Order: sequence, then C-alpha cells, then structure tokens
Amino acid sequence: MTELSFVSLVRSDLERVESLLRERYPGQHESIGVAVDHLVDGGGKRLRPALVLLSARLCGAEPERAVFAAAAVEMLHTATLIHDDLIDGALVRRGTGTLNAHWSPTATVLTGDYAFAYAAYLASRAEDVRLMQRFAETLMVICNGEVRQMFDGRYRQPSLREYEQRIYAKTASLIAMSAEAGAILAGVDPATTEALRAYGEQLGLAFQVVDDVLDFVADEEMLGKPVGSDLRQGLITLPLLLYLEAEPEQSAVRQALQGDPSEELVREAVQAVAGSPAIEQALGVARQRADWAKEALDGFSDSSYRAALLELADFTVRRCF
Amino acid sequence: MTELSFVSLVRSDLERVESLLRERYPGQHESIGVAVDHLVDGGGKRLRPALVLLSARLCGAEPERAVFAAAAVEMLHTATLIHDDLIDGALVRRGTGTLNAHWSPTATVLTGDYAFAYAAYLASRAEDVRLMQRFAETLMVICNGEVRQMFDGRYRQPSLREYEQRIYAKTASLIAMSAEAGAILAGVDPATTEALRAYGEQLGLAFQVVDDVLDFVADEEMLGKPVGSDLRQGLITLPLLLYLEAEPEQSAVRQALQGDPSEELVREAVQAVAGSPAIEQALGVARQRADWAKEALDGFSDSSYRAALLELADFTVRRCF
Repeated sequence: MTELSFVSLVRSDLERVESLLRERYPGQHESIGVAVDHLVDGGGKRLRPALVLLSARLCGAEPERAVFAAAAVEMLHTATLIHDDLIDGALVRRGTGTLNAHWSPTATVLTGDYAFAYAAYLASRAEDVRLMQRFAETLMVICNGEVRQMFDGRYRQPSLREYEQRIYAKTASLIAMSAEAGAILAGVDPATTEALRAYGEQLGLAFQVVDDVLDFVADEEMLGKPVGSDLRQGLITLPLLLYLEAEPEQSAVRQALQGDPSEELVREAVQAVAGSPAIEQALGVARQRADWAKEALDGFSDSSYRAALLELADFTVRRCF
Repeated sequence: MTELSFVSLVRSDLERVESLLRERYPGQHESIGVAVDHLVDGGGKRLRPALVLLSARLCGAEPERAVFAAAAVEMLHTATLIHDDLIDGALVRRGTGTLNAHWSPTATVLTGDYAFAYAAYLASRAEDVRLMQRFAETLMVICNGEVRQMFDGRYRQPSLREYEQRIYAKTASLIAMSAEAGAILAGVDPATTEALRAYGEQLGLAFQVVDDVLDFVADEEMLGKPVGSDLRQGLITLPLLLYLEAEPEQSAVRQALQGDPSEELVREAVQAVAGSPAIEQALGVARQRADWAKEALDGFSDSSYRAALLELADFTVRRCF
C-alpha cells in the first residue's frame, strides 16, 4: 500500500501529521503521551489524514493549515476508537492490544477525553470556524450513532436503511468530513465543497461495507483480529443481512442470533456466510458506492490529486486488510 | 441568590443560554435529549455562563456570539461532570441523582462524549478561532488534571502547590476561560484580556477552596450531597491539609487516611476538621484569592458590569451551598 500514489503525493505532509499526533503539550502527564503514542503507533492506514491533504491540494488550500486539519481528524478517529473499545469490550483492534486491555476503565475514559480535546485543539490550529463547526457536528453524529446502536440492542436485525444510517454515523461521516475539509480550508464554491463531501460519503460507506465483509472472510493475521467479531457482539452487518434474506432458515446462523452464541457456533455461522453469495453481493454494494464516489469527482479537471482520489476509491474495495 | 445583580444584569441572555442547552439537534436520539435535560435541570448556579456574558458586556462583545460561548462553557462543564461522576462513582451531585446512577456506564460515556461534541459545536457558533483554541486547551488542562489525580492515587497528602495545581485544572481553568471569553470575542487588547483571565483564575481558585470547605461544614440538604465526600474518596483538600499541619497526630483523621475508612470514622474525622481553626484559615485563603480577583479589575472604569463582577467575587466566598 505504501507504493500507492495517494500516499506518495502527500508523503511529506503525512510525516508532519505524524509528528503532530505525537506532540507533547506542555505539562501533559507522561502517561497520556504513552497511551496516545501506543494508539498512534498501532494506527491504521492514515486514510483520513491522506484524504484531508489530497482534498486540500486539489482545491488549493494552504498546506500548513491542512496538516493541522489532517492531524485533527486522525486524533478524533483515535479518540472515538478509545471509547468504542471501552464500550464494546473488544480486546484487539488494529493488531495491537486496545488501551483498556492494559488500562483501567477510568484511565481509558480520561485518555479518550484528552484525545478529543487534543483533536479539537489541532482543528482549531487550522484556523477556520466553518471547519470547527463541521468537526463538532461530525462528532455529534458519531456519538449519536453509538447511542442509537446501544439502544437498538444486540442481535437485532436492522433494515437495510438502518444499516446504512449506522455505517454513515460510524464511519462515513468522518470520512466525508475529511474529504470536505480541504475544500472548506480553500474556501471554494459550495458545489465543489459538496462534490468532495459526496465523494467522501460514498467512499466511507464503501469502506465500511468492505470492513464488514472482511469480518467474515479476512485472513485473521492480516486483519489483526479474529473474524466474526461483529457477530460475536450481536452486530448484524450487510453480509449477514443479505445472507438472511436469501436463506432465512439456515440453522447455525439463526441459532447464533438467538444471543450469546458459543465460539463454535460463531465459527460455524461465519463459515456459512463466508461461503455464500452474500459476500459477493455485499462487495457489489461496496463497488457501486466506490463508483459513485468517483463520479462525484467528474467536475474536477484532471490532476494528480484527482487521480489519487480515484485510485483511493478503487483501493478501498480491493483491499484485504 | 436570584436577587444578585450579576444575574439580573444578564437575565435575558441567560434565558437564551438555557434554551440553547436544551436544544435538540436534528436526528438526535431522544435518550440523549432526556439525559442532557436531566443534567441541565439539576444544574448548578450558572456561574460560568454568567461570567462569559458579563465579561462580554464589559468589553463590548456582540451579545449574540457571547450567548453561544456562554452555553458552550456550561455544556463543557456538564460534560466533564458526567465523566467525572462515572469516574469517582459519586451517586449524588448537585442535589439530583447523577446520570450513572440511572444509566449504564456505556450510556454515560457516550452521553458525556455527545455533550463534549455539543459544547464544541456551541463554541464554534460563536465564530471565533481564538476562543475555540482556548476552549480546546482548557479541556486538555481539565483532562490532564484528572489523569494526574488518578495516578497520584487516593489518600495521598499533596503539597500546597500540588493542591493548587489540582484545583486550577479541575475548576479555575474553565472559570478563567469563561471570564476571558468575553474579552476574546470583543477583540480587546492583550492586557485587558489578561486582566479578565486573571480575575477568573483567582475567582475559580477561591470558588474551589470554598467548595472544599463546604464539604466539611455545609448543611447537607443545602449542599445536596453528604459532607465528607472528598475524604470518603481519599481526596485531601485544603481544610484537611491545614488541619494536618496544625495537628499532625489527631487519631481519627490519621486513621481515616489509612484508606477505605468506615462511615463512622469519616464522620468523626469530618467533625474534627469542621471544629478546628483549619476551616477559618482555608476561608482566609479563599478571601485572599477573591481580593486578588477584584484587584485584577482595577484597570476597568466603573460600570454596572464591573460592579457585578466584584459582587460575584464577594458572593463566591460568602455562599453556603
């Protein structure tokens, strides 16, 4: 993946983002730095900061401010993962232990709060009021989605529309904001801003559908966590939804959805879904979203940055981790 | 207290702050509204928003923007209380049940996160980048202080300097920011901004010292919670520090500080401190801080707003709840 042009085009800016993510604020307790570094080290594909930087370059925003915005979205993402981990009790994320496997719940809540504060601080350094507003609104959408998921309960079969609303709140909202951020910083016209936002939203939906597929079919070592973790937690995602539509009577899957399934039953249910046409159907949905993401960029003239964003959409549905 | 001029001068703005605190964001899950209303209803003296509004009027900031900033600091305060309650497990705060006495820890964490996001959103609507930056930095200071307190452990005797650093992070930082907010929004010169900040910082330190005194001597019904709650949690505050300096051998207090004291021992220790000169000494420290707060306003010409801020400093050290 490091060979992909969407990374190499903004490599030096991404390096500055990395430094900001590891910066110590004066007076900051050492343990916060250790915890945040731990999370940043374990840290993912840097999809969101790359998006901010590419959209900023595409629209001609000041790179200096874009670097702050890019660091802010990655820190916000990290902060939501910290509390998310605490909430769903997942012990492994991104291939490293989660914070709360090492820390008390108290320390985890506080570290997450600090990461939120630091994300807001980084965003404020991009010096754009509208960006701050979108940033806060996006966090509201994310929290609201988490609350909704919690109240909807486990093992409940959502409608397709509810599934889309959930993955929009969980993933696509922040990816949409990342793609929009560069346009906001550049102060381009509303239609251009909206086009980048639409690109990010479709990309984010595609990204989460692929994530949900990988939770059934991925190589566990590459994924960095056991497959079936959604099902184990009673979370019904697109592949399972499509499977249930086609084969409503299959016993292992139905049994697993009765609640608190044994590990054996989870494995059996995962294999049933993984071996079914639901996987290809779900990937078809993701590919459709990725195509819509690319179409949203039709109005931009050719450039290496536009090409990188198109490539990123393709990568999103091709990736296997 | 409702008769005090610092409230009556900004009453109509405070009513608009109340509406903002109860506003429902489109798509917001109903339970979030219920939880936030519950907290806002239970909600304190509105000291922080009153400060923002008074400092804004004093410096000539646009009232519309000051109302957003005032709502933002109160929502931030509420958000920190939510996670604070979760962390120290206090069952009663501000005379009403805390959220986590009714809700699961998961729901509490998420509601707190939502309140942080809503606070940031309100702050962004004041449309001032510098205010946003101070807002984020203040939240970092608060979280950092909580982390420090957690790592320092319970029943540990802090130095006077450590005590002041703790109450600065916990209380005075946000009150200082509230007093500074109006000056920032008005765009006045740095010295004036700094004077209001110094006023708020000293006021905040005085306020927390009085809070710590009240935890030993208050009428429980008026306080809305049992006295001795700090000691019960192993938190050593100024009255106890001063008591220990004067009477290092008193047995009930020393015993209570061995850890996890019985309720009877807590009551005995609280009575020993409450009946000692340490109370008057601690109040003397608070009065000194309140005087310094008032001195910080020496450079402002006479006005009803300046008079209200002076009165607020007096009220802070006179209050009994």
